[in-house]
Amino acid sequence: MNRQQLIEQIKQKKSFLCVGLDTDIDLIPGFLLEYADPVFEFNKRIIDATHDLCVAYKPNSAFYESRGIAGWQSLIHTSQHIPETCLGLIDAKRGDIGNTSTMYAKAFFDEKSSGMSFDAITVAPYMGIDSVKPFLEFEGKWVVLLALTSNEGSENFQFINTGDQRLFETVIDTANDWAGNDRIMYVVGATRSEEFISIRKHAPDHFLLVPGVGAQGGSLQDVARYGLTKDCGLLVNSSRSIIYASKGEDFAERAREEALKLQQEMCVLMEEHNII
Amino acid sequence: MNRQQLIEQIKQKKSFLCVGLDTDIDLIPGFLLEYADPVFEFNKRIIDATHDLCVAYKPNSAFYESRGIAGWQSLIHTSQHIPETCLGLIDAKRGDIGNTSTMYAKAFFDEKSSGMSFDAITVAPYMGIDSVKPFLEFEGKWVVLLALTSNEGSENFQFINTGDQRLFETVIDTANDWAGNDRIMYVVGATRSEEFISIRKHAPDHFLLVPGVGAQGGSLQDVARYGLTKDCGLLVNSSRSIIYASKGEDFAERAREEALKLQQEMCVLMEEHNII
Repeated sequence: MNRQQLIEQIKQKKSFLCVGLDTDIDLIPGFLLEYADPVFEFNKRIIDATHDLCVAYKPNSAFYESRGIAGWQSLIHTSQHIPETCLGLIDAKRGDIGNTSTMYAKAFFDEKSSGMSFDAITVAPYMGIDSVKPFLEFEGKWVVLLALTSNEGSENFQFINTGDQRLFETVIDTANDWAGNDRIMYVVGATRSEEFISIRKHAPDHFLLVPGVGAQGGSLQDVARYGLTKDCGLLVNSSRSIIYASKGEDFAERAREEALKLQQEMCVLMEEHNII
Repeated sequence: MNRQQLIEQIKQKKSFLCVGLDTDIDLIPGFLLEYADPVFEFNKRIIDATHDLCVAYKPNSAFYESRGIAGWQSLIHTSQHIPETCLGLIDAKRGDIGNTSTMYAKAFFDEKSSGMSFDAITVAPYMGIDSVKPFLEFEGKWVVLLALTSNEGSENFQFINTGDQRLFETVIDTANDWAGNDRIMYVVGATRSEEFISIRKHAPDHFLLVPGVGAQGGSLQDVARYGLTKDCGLLVNSSRSIIYASKGEDFAERAREEALKLQQEMCVLMEEHNII
């Protein structure tokens, strides 16, 4: 899904919601455990119930890897079930030297090689350009680079002064030279809404993937106020508050209700900002 | 394998060699393709031929992930074949928030959950303490934190001035507060041997995992001169120059010859430094 198609989906659905599939087999409704692939069965029903209300799905790779072969199988099934009207974004936070990054790109972008063909992947910046370029050699795919994350540990290094700015701003400035806003997005946590003004100076038109709304305490209103651009420019992720809205048989309907609430808030915000 | 056991293995084998299992199915001898799991068959023969000459094996996770389910299966089989006399180190460069890091720890440390029980994992520092602590909650396991890597892109961020030192030095100083030298090692590329003097000021007793000798051009002599401590303190990795020494049926014997050359060099270096 390219930038233009993403913007079209956002305007059509009046939503910039990304649903995080941090699916933990210990937290899904018990009746699903009778299925051959319970985690996929859960994800499938979540996707079927919400795909008209969101523009992206973001499986968190760790939750699948923790279950070994069975988990990898759930991830493959899930990737294949994400509809074309939604961006498939694997949250894997990979980052390595060139030939290794090429292997990671095959793992998540090359269906013939691994069974998976996501549109985008989260990448860690510490090792620099070699960690990013090999992913961009896959036509039409996105790198979503960590800039300012929502966790407490982000203060250890991301806020370090690197001259006249902070490290996360230097990461954005540097990566802006590696590819355009049609190939790179940045991760910026919703818990850092006071920093969105600065982020938008460094990345005025880039899409930002924003985790941390909901369970982690970030405010959608604040993120939208400082983060929205004329093309929207935001993908706001919510995981637990949607997928675990209920632990009963009604989990998918309740997930839809939570997604609908966020979509309706997003619709109002986009209208206020004259995006739709 | 704890620090004392690692030091004992090093002294007994007179070696601080880590063999990198960056096993690419397109580069292994053709006759292995007839086996059910060719990559594991390759790794098994490499391990069987070299385990008395090295103290660690380091599979590179990307090479396995790129092949989807089949690759994950090869990685599981390989992890189970690493003998107790060698550190099993998964080169996965993970790094995420707390609950996600716990899932990655389960993936690579918890055999019941994933089928794999490595002793150590490489971790990226960008997201800070949350990326490290959950791994250390697994008793006896190691985090091998990226500090100064061997690739060109390391210059993008790792050398940034953060006041009176560079970012990689700040990463070491900060992580030294998170756990002792019996739980954390640092990655320092062999191509940066001029920096080992500075690294040893920040991490005088820590084990350093040193990639980049051999194919990437780093010098074992230089690394040893500035990097060796009284307890050795180094794990020098070599991948391609050992595992791809021959592409014929003699690949395992040739791998042993290459490993033996390095072990013999390491033996001399340790004698010169009065370690053995």
